[in-house]
Formats: sequence, C-alpha cells, structure tokens
Amino acid sequence: MSDADAFNTLQEKVEALTRQVGILEDVNAIRHLHYKYGYYMDKCLYDETVELFSDSAEVRFLNGLYRGRKGAQRLYCDWFRNLFTGGHNGPAYGFLLDHLMLQGVIDVAPDRATARARFRCFMQGGVHESKKEVIPNFPSQFWEGGIYENEYVREDGVWKIRLLNYNMLWQATYKEGWTHSAVHLGALTKTFPEDPNGPDELVSAMPDVWPHTRVVPFHYPHPVTGK
Amino acid sequence: MSDADAFNTLQEKVEALTRQVGILEDVNAIRHLHYKYGYYMDKCLYDETVELFSDSAEVRFLNGLYRGRKGAQRLYCDWFRNLFTGGHNGPAYGFLLDHLMLQGVIDVAPDRATARARFRCFMQGGVHESKKEVIPNFPSQFWEGGIYENEYVREDGVWKIRLLNYNMLWQATYKEGWTHSAVHLGALTKTFPEDPNGPDELVSAMPDVWPHTRVVPFHYPHPVTGK
Amino acid sequence: MSDADAFNTLQEKVEALTRQVGILEDVNAIRHLHYKYGYYMDKCLYDETVELFSDSAEVRFLNGLYRGRKGAQRLYCDWFRNLFTGGHNGPAYGFLLDHLMLQGVIDVAPDRATARARFRCFMQGGVHESKKEVIPNFPSQFWEGGIYENEYVREDGVWKIRLLNYNMLWQATYKEGWTHSAVHLGALTKTFPEDPNGPDELVSAMPDVWPHTRVVPFHYPHPVTGK
Repeated sequence: MSDADAFNTLQEKVEALTRQVGILEDVNAIRHLHYKYGYYMDKCLYDETVELFSDSAEVRFLNGLYRGRKGAQRLYCDWFRNLFTGGHNGPAYGFLLDHLMLQGVIDVAPDRATARARFRCFMQGGVHESKKEVIPNFPSQFWEGGIYENEYVREDGVWKIRLLNYNMLWQATYKEGWTHSAVHLGALTKTFPEDPNGPDELVSAMPDVWPHTRVVPFHYPHPVTGK
Repeated sequence: MSDADAFNTLQEKVEALTRQVGILEDVNAIRHLHYKYGYYMDKCLYDETVELFSDSAEVRFLNGLYRGRKGAQRLYCDWFRNLFTGGHNGPAYGFLLDHLMLQGVIDVAPDRATARARFRCFMQGGVHESKKEVIPNFPSQFWEGGIYENEYVREDGVWKIRLLNYNMLWQATYKEGWTHSAVHLGALTKTFPEDPNGPDELVSAMPDVWPHTRVVPFHYPHPVTGK
Repeated sequence: MSDADAFNTLQEKVEALTRQVGILEDVNAIRHLHYKYGYYMDKCLYDETVELFSDSAEVRFLNGLYRGRKGAQRLYCDWFRNLFTGGHNGPAYGFLLDHLMLQGVIDVAPDRATARARFRCFMQGGVHESKKEVIPNFPSQFWEGGIYENEYVREDGVWKIRLLNYNMLWQATYKEGWTHSAVHLGALTKTFPEDPNGPDELVSAMPDVWPHTRVVPFHYPHPVTGK
C-alpha cells in the first residue's frame, strides 16, 4: 500500500468513526430529551414541554391527533394546564403526576436527520386530601402504565420531538389496584373547535386499554432474527 | 518526529478510538437487547423472547437451571405461555405482567466477544376481576422486585443473551404489601422430564427471598476502590 | 490542500473525536456510578457507598449539609446503618429499601474534570411483620419519590461523587397512599456534634415536601430554547 493509499484508508476510517460517534451522541441527546420531557411534565411546566416540539410536530393522545405547535399547546396548555393547575405554569399544591421515564430503545436514521424511540412510562398521580380545588374526573390517587413510540427530528443541529405518540395501556386506582379497576380516561368524541381542547382529528376508535391488552407496534425489527 | 512516525501515531490513535467506539456501541446494543426482552415479556411474546438467546444459552430461574434454546423454550413457551395465556403467543385479556427494566450496569470484555450486565426489574402483575380463566397459584395482583446478572455473547456481530440470571428478591400482594406478605413462588423440586416444564438441573437450595434478604453478587469491582 | 495540510486536518479531526468519545465514556461511567450507588444503598452496603465519594464531597439531605468523607460517614454509617441494620454493613432480615434509579440527564464539563447529573429515585421501603427489631419513626411500608441533582469530579481518571444532592419530594404510607399521607421525615434541628448523627450545617429551612410541591432546579438549560 502506498503512502497515499494508507492516508486515504485512514481518512475513511476517521469519516466512519465521525458518523458512529455522531450517532452515539444523538442517542444520548434523544434519551435526555425524553427524560427532560418527563421532568417538565412532572412539574406542570407545559410551556417548556411544548417548546421541546418541532413546529411540524404531532401528538397522539388517546384516539386524538393534535397537529403542530398549536395543537400541542391546545393539549398541554389549554387542556392539561387549565385542568390540573388552574392555568398556572408550574407545580401546584397537593397535585402529583410523576412521570417515571425508562427503558428507551433509540434508533437514529443513517442520515442522522430523524430518529425513533420507544420508552416506557410509569406514573403516580393524584391529589392530596388537603387540596381544596377539585379536578373533575381525576381519581384521588392512581397508577398508570404506558408506552411511547416517538419520532424525532434534528433541526439546525438540535433534536426535537416530531411525533409524541403516547399509548396509555392501563390505569388503576390506588385503593382498588389493577384487578378491580379500569382506565379512567375515555375516548375523545369531538374535534377542535367544537371542543376547545379537542384534537385536530379523531384518528381511530379508542385503542384497547386495560383490561384489554395490545402490543404497541415496535419501530424496530427483532434484534436477532431481523423480523 | 518524522512524517512516518506521525502517521503511525495517528493510525494507532484511530485504532484505539475504533475499539472504544465499538464498546460504546456494544453497551447501547446490550442495553437495548435487555429492554427489548422486557417489552416482549410484558406482552407474552415468548417466541420472540427465546429468539434473543444464543443456542448455548442458560437461564437461571428460582433454583433451576434451564440449558440451551430447548431449555429456554421449556421455561418460556411450555411453562409460562401455557400458564399465562393458555398457549397463545401474545397478550391476553385481563393479564398484566409489566416488566420495568432499569438501572443497567453494562461491561463489555476487552475482546468485545462477551459482556456482563446487571439490571433491575420492578413488576406489576395480576389479572383483572372480569377475566374468566384462572391462573393457578398466581395472585390476583402483586408487585415484584428482582435483579438480573446476565451474560451476553456476540455471534456474527449480533449480541445475544448467553446467561439470563434473574434473581427474584421480593414479591408482595397488592392488598397486603411487603410488610404483610411474602413471595408466592416456591422452590422447584423436580427436573425435566419428570416435570415436563422443569429445569435441566436444580442448582442449589432455593436462594433467599423476602422477608430474607441477600446481595446478588456484583459482576463488577467497586468503581473507586477496585475491590 | 497540501499533504501536510491534509494530515493536519485529519489529526485535528482525530483530536476532536478523542474528546467526544471521552465524554461519551464519561457519561456511561457516571450513569454506572449512580446506579451502583443505588444498588449499594438497597443492600445497606454503607461502607461501599461512602467509598464512591471524593474526599472533598458534600451530601445534602433534608435541610442538612454533611461535609467531606467524614460527614458522609456520619450520615450513612453512623445514622443510617445504626438505624436500619443495627450497625451491620449489609442487608438485614425483613428490611426493604429498594432505590430504583432512573431518568439520568448527565452533562460533562468541556474539560472533562467535572460533571452534573439529574436522576430520579423511586423507592419501596419498610419492614416485614415478622421482623423483631423496631426501627423508630420508620413506617411499616411506604413509597418515596425524589430527585438528585448531583455533581461529580474525575480524580486520577476515576469519577467520584462530589455533591450528593437528594431532594426527597414525597413519601406515602402503603396503606394510605399519597392522597391520605404526607412525608414521615422531618427537618433536622441540630448540627454535629450536638447531634452525633447531625449535619455540619443546617443549610436552609426544610425544603417544601408533599403535599407541597416544588421544582428542583435543573442543572441544564432548556434543550431547544437554551433558557
């Protein structure tokens, strides 16, 4: 091998490494992005939550599809924030909604422009008995389990949420547990603007929830068989 | 330093980086592999679970050792699948067994052919009161905590489970909690084929479980003292 | 571009990659360090816990500040170990205090000498009804949720804990849940040596805990807006 060939070979190795390292950094960035989403959600920081989204984002929640930043604001700021904290952007006395985020499987596209990730969420929610304000249709204390299958986009070097696709799979009241209770959230029935907090589109029938069960489709093939 | 020396030095640096980046990719791959194991287990996808194992795999469960892919199939497909879903490969109405996988400490061997990892599992299990089929000796709803100390092997560039070593440490019924209940799983007493679902070997006395406690040995030295 | 220029360019790329890979390794090392902290805490391995700290470490717990290795030993070995296991370094019959560690956001300083990380902890604690020894002021069974905002330092190539800053946010008895119970831990009132287990300093009023709520300040800016 000539000197020039050796140099070219080394240059190619460095290019390959640069791409591999970039993807490893992307994986960390996306893991952190989702974890930060969880920390903001814990504390009712809905403005900060919505700022994690791309302008072209979509949010799937129950059987609804919220489109764009405006759709996300309608869901997080108009619906959740008014319901949970009376419109205050931040934590409220006696309100608990911890989002434990874990078990991320993160896959970055070869061009490093987009990515997909599966995460699990396990929640503790409820209100303290000393809290005066009542939250309608919100159990006094409950557990929730669900799966995200999200999409991400890198814009100007910054990873943002492109699709927030949360699949709530079960809820259970604290007192009864999952044997003796079912989900408290029901299907959405009206779109915006008929429902001022409603989604832009009703995408499907309400997905199966506990005591029904379902597999949230995996964005990845089986790691050994490739199927 | 001559040009040739400078080139050799750079080449060595690139070789070192290539190995370091490979290990970082391995760590992510093994983390993902275990998380995928958890997602499959949640949804009773036992065929997919078994396909994560190397042909030479072993599974330790309670005081039993299951050998090879056939052993794993006996445990997951013959025992668990028949017990939990009546033989159906996939989720069943009213059956919950969420495997929250977290806290992975993953160490890849210098030759990148094998690896060890510790993970924690926290489970929510049980059946809904509306479910008709009864699962024998299965509490209506329970919590479980345990520790994996697994081994992995890279075959043809693909990481697979070499040893699935799950140490269930505590179980508690939902109603009583861990103060007032103990584990519901007991020691295995017969090997295959006397027990058609049994292990190939009984490896030891039943390990200590709640309310007894024990340290599952760490595969790694103390990170500061090295002990 | 001359050969010399091409070589210099490649050399600079390799230097940049070396730094990037080093940071990725640091992130993994710090994640593992915190997870190992959790595993030691689970099993009352308080000597091993304290050995994870730098000599110049600080621990914040409730409204107390413990300084240096001696302060950490006072908290973990003198207080916790005597209280929980009667002075035995290791797990005790019928004592549960699982520390589920998750959701790490880890940021390494550009000089790779220090780092900051946020983690979440979710705990299951209590004692089995068959345990004879009573632990004063310790609920028979409880949940706890909290946030770490820690600092790390790299000494002789080894990452150690510089600041262990645990913010317990809520505790709830198992029987009552978070709707009907509040935290069982109260403010510290005396410093060492007046209290032989006390902190070196009382840093502030007791931080707000459930049913009060607060945002534990983030060590990182918003990932999209930078605020």
